[in-house]
Amino acid sequence: QIDELIEDIHPADILDAIHAYEGDKKLLLQKLPEWVIAAIIDYAEDEEKYEILSIFPEKRQKDIVEEMSSDELVDLLGSIPKEQADDIIVKLDLEEAEEVRELLTYKPDTAGGIMATEFICVQDTMSVGETLKYLQKEAPDAETAYYIYVLGEHDDLKGVVSLRDIVVSNFDVKIGDIMNENVISIPVDMDQEEVGHIFEKYSFLTMPVVNERDEMLGIVTVDDIMAVLSDEHTEDMYRLAGLQEGEKVTGSIGESVKSRLPWLFVNLITAILAAATVSLFEDTISKVVALATFMPIVAGMGGNAGTQTLTLIVRGIALGELTFENAKKVLFKEFGVGISNGFAIGLAVATLGYLWERKPIFGLVIGLAMFLNLIAATTAGFLVPVTLRRFKIDPALASAVFVTTVTDVLGFFFFLGLATLFISYLL
Amino acid sequence: QIDELIEDIHPADILDAIHAYEGDKKLLLQKLPEWVIAAIIDYAEDEEKYEILSIFPEKRQKDIVEEMSSDELVDLLGSIPKEQADDIIVKLDLEEAEEVRELLTYKPDTAGGIMATEFICVQDTMSVGETLKYLQKEAPDAETAYYIYVLGEHDDLKGVVSLRDIVVSNFDVKIGDIMNENVISIPVDMDQEEVGHIFEKYSFLTMPVVNERDEMLGIVTVDDIMAVLSDEHTEDMYRLAGLQEGEKVTGSIGESVKSRLPWLFVNLITAILAAATVSLFEDTISKVVALATFMPIVAGMGGNAGTQTLTLIVRGIALGELTFENAKKVLFKEFGVGISNGFAIGLAVATLGYLWERKPIFGLVIGLAMFLNLIAATTAGFLVPVTLRRFKIDPALASAVFVTTVTDVLGFFFFLGLATLFISYLL
Ligand SMILES: [Mg+2]
Ligand SMILES: [Mg+2]
Ligand SMILES: [Mg+2]
Ligand SMILES: [Mg+2]
Ligand SMILES: [Mg+2]
Ligand SMILES: [Mg+2]
Ligand SMILES: [Mg+2]
Ligand SMILES: [Mg+2]
Ligand SMILES: [Mg+2]
Ligand SMILES: [Mg+2]
Ligand SMILES: [Mg+2]
Ligand SMILES: [Mg+2]
Ligand SMILES: [Mg+2]
Repeated sequence: QIDELIEDIHPADILDAIHAYEGDKKLLLQKLPEWVIAAIIDYAEDEEKYEILSIFPEKRQKDIVEEMSSDELVDLLGSIPKEQADDIIVKLDLEEAEEVRELLTYKPDTAGGIMATEFICVQDTMSVGETLKYLQKEAPDAETAYYIYVLGEHDDLKGVVSLRDIVVSNFDVKIGDIMNENVISIPVDMDQEEVGHIFEKYSFLTMPVVNERDEMLGIVTVDDIMAVLSDEHTEDMYRLAGLQEGEKVTGSIGESVKSRLPWLFVNLITAILAAATVSLFEDTISKVVALATFMPIVAGMGGNAGTQTLTLIVRGIALGELTFENAKKVLFKEFGVGISNGFAIGLAVATLGYLWERKPIFGLVIGLAMFLNLIAATTAGFLVPVTLRRFKIDPALASAVFVTTVTDVLGFFFFLGLATLFISYLL
Repeated sequence: QIDELIEDIHPADILDAIHAYEGDKKLLLQKLPEWVIAAIIDYAEDEEKYEILSIFPEKRQKDIVEEMSSDELVDLLGSIPKEQADDIIVKLDLEEAEEVRELLTYKPDTAGGIMATEFICVQDTMSVGETLKYLQKEAPDAETAYYIYVLGEHDDLKGVVSLRDIVVSNFDVKIGDIMNENVISIPVDMDQEEVGHIFEKYSFLTMPVVNERDEMLGIVTVDDIMAVLSDEHTEDMYRLAGLQEGEKVTGSIGESVKSRLPWLFVNLITAILAAATVSLFEDTISKVVALATFMPIVAGMGGNAGTQTLTLIVRGIALGELTFENAKKVLFKEFGVGISNGFAIGLAVATLGYLWERKPIFGLVIGLAMFLNLIAATTAGFLVPVTLRRFKIDPALASAVFVTTVTDVLGFFFFLGLATLFISYLL
């Protein structure tokens, strides 16, 4: 009777209930049927998947993993050490074991790494009525039944037909007559982020994955793609800020230090570069100490303006809005934005500098330095990520450090350099 | 025959082809059937939607908008001025016009603003066979046919059944016997970002939207939710960097200046605060000018460490991983990370300062200032977004400015303050 009670409750909610349960979680889990446990493991975080499976005896573990679809199983196996994974694979039927072993050969962040092999395929000579009968047998095990793929002799992808099209057609219509022959498919080695953008472009619920001979290997489903896109977005934000993949809000101090400290040391090196620039002008600063007060404004505002452009460009690349064709136009635009904002902010700090120090040349020096640094900032904010991308490096990675190095070094250089040039008017 | 040629081509690809077409785009568009134009408008950017529609004469415009589903129509109408929108609405049938007018009363970024009213509903007393017959009539017009909703007398949501479950059931089974009664529904006024997270949690393809009396009003579909989540990601990144909603890589200089300049002025005010802090210690700097060289390191590294924590927290809030329950634990962790990283980076710059200046106290002063500032950085990186959230302000908005103000002001204060304290050892 627990089957009936639990049947209508979503596995994600059962997992929540288990997390909130104050009593013996193991006892609770042991009461659940295998297919529910398999579903719960799918919705659990990577770290938790094996933890749940491992509370069961060998025999039940086999029954549970048999309830999982291939992509879920691959997720589970990918979250544990290889030996443990092998222990689980040997429990599977020979055929399924081989299938999973093959799936594990694909890189986890490619189409092959996220696809499931439980798709429904038919021949184009079948009628709608035959297909419906076939579906009644196959649908319960399939990852999705809403698209049915039409394969040729050599598993080559010939067409696709939606369950909706089947339902609205007469029983004797041939699948070949209602199928869409212009199937958009995903190469098995495509990066998962790119797969995500293809889903975003076309609004599909499922897409077929093919090898270089156009043989269909599996399907990718939109629910998994949403998780992919969320992960890729986290990656972009993390990389821009200098955090490493996998760091969690709820992680330990040790994990966070490991994630962040290396990046802080990289930043330190660039900070030293900026400091070295300042040290060239210690003589000037010792004569006009107000320069020390104003120099963080020039450098800091450059950093802010550079980060604005950088973020726009990184997001524009991720969204596919920045292309080779429009790159030059965007560079000119950013240059123009640098001039405009540089003029406005430059005028503001020139006024401020003049009012503070009561020397027109002081205002001119800081205003001009600010103007130049904001132009440098938007230009670097464009060039750094675009150059990284040219060299096939993720534009989110390391860009922020490069850009702020440019704005710090140039900011100090422009400001203190100009001050040195006009030193006689500043004394 | 153009219908048959074009039938199997995805509207997103037709739109791409039109963009790439060098000849007269209007002529090309005019050759397409209405349902294709409606689909193309759905896949076009907001700015382009009305541009496409407006090339057609009044009569065809009516035919095109009649091919659009309600949520697509609302997207189109939301992208143009109210008077133009009214002109389009009056072209609709009375019933549809009223429906669209009602949809337009919901805020665009809530469930009501993104839902479609073309869903399929049946009664629980209907059999699977009757439902399939009903589907053959209704499915072509529905936004999705993969979930069928079961409504009671007062349009109250009693259950949901998937097309897959229908297809695998016998014709004489009653819908009431196979439906899932535990339907998870979305309140009509829920923020679209929260709706997105519910889709991510449950992996649904479609979810029903209800009012406070649990009457079903419409459905939200996963394809639109992917667009919502992408927009919300962009918003978070933009807000952290000080860019305004709607700025595009491909926009004009004027638009970019309008988006960024206000934010740069806010930053300028906080930069002045930092400068004011430095000015308090001009006397000290004039005695030990090397302080001017090292002070950007202390402030800048604080900014980097603060941004790391801030990004983690903002993302953690967006992903629902930071909760009221674990907030205190996370604060302690961030404090610990600040101590650990502060110790490591502090030691590094202390050594550097000592080697550079050959004065042990100089090393001690900068090392200690760095240590303190990194603790302040991780603490502020946590407290600022969490406090903003408490006051129902988007934690991504304005946090970066606050955090870097803290790290700049405190960085300069710790470093120059300690230097003033130990000034006799530094001369
Ligand atoms: Mg299986
Ligand atoms: Mg996977
Ligand atoms: Mg899956
Ligand atoms: Mg899944
Ligand atoms: Mg990636
Ligand atoms: Mg990426
Ligand atoms: Mg800075
Ligand atoms: Mg309509
Ligand atoms: Mg909308
Ligand atoms: Mg829609
Ligand atoms: Mg859409
Ligand atoms: Mg948000
Ligand atoms: Mg929002």
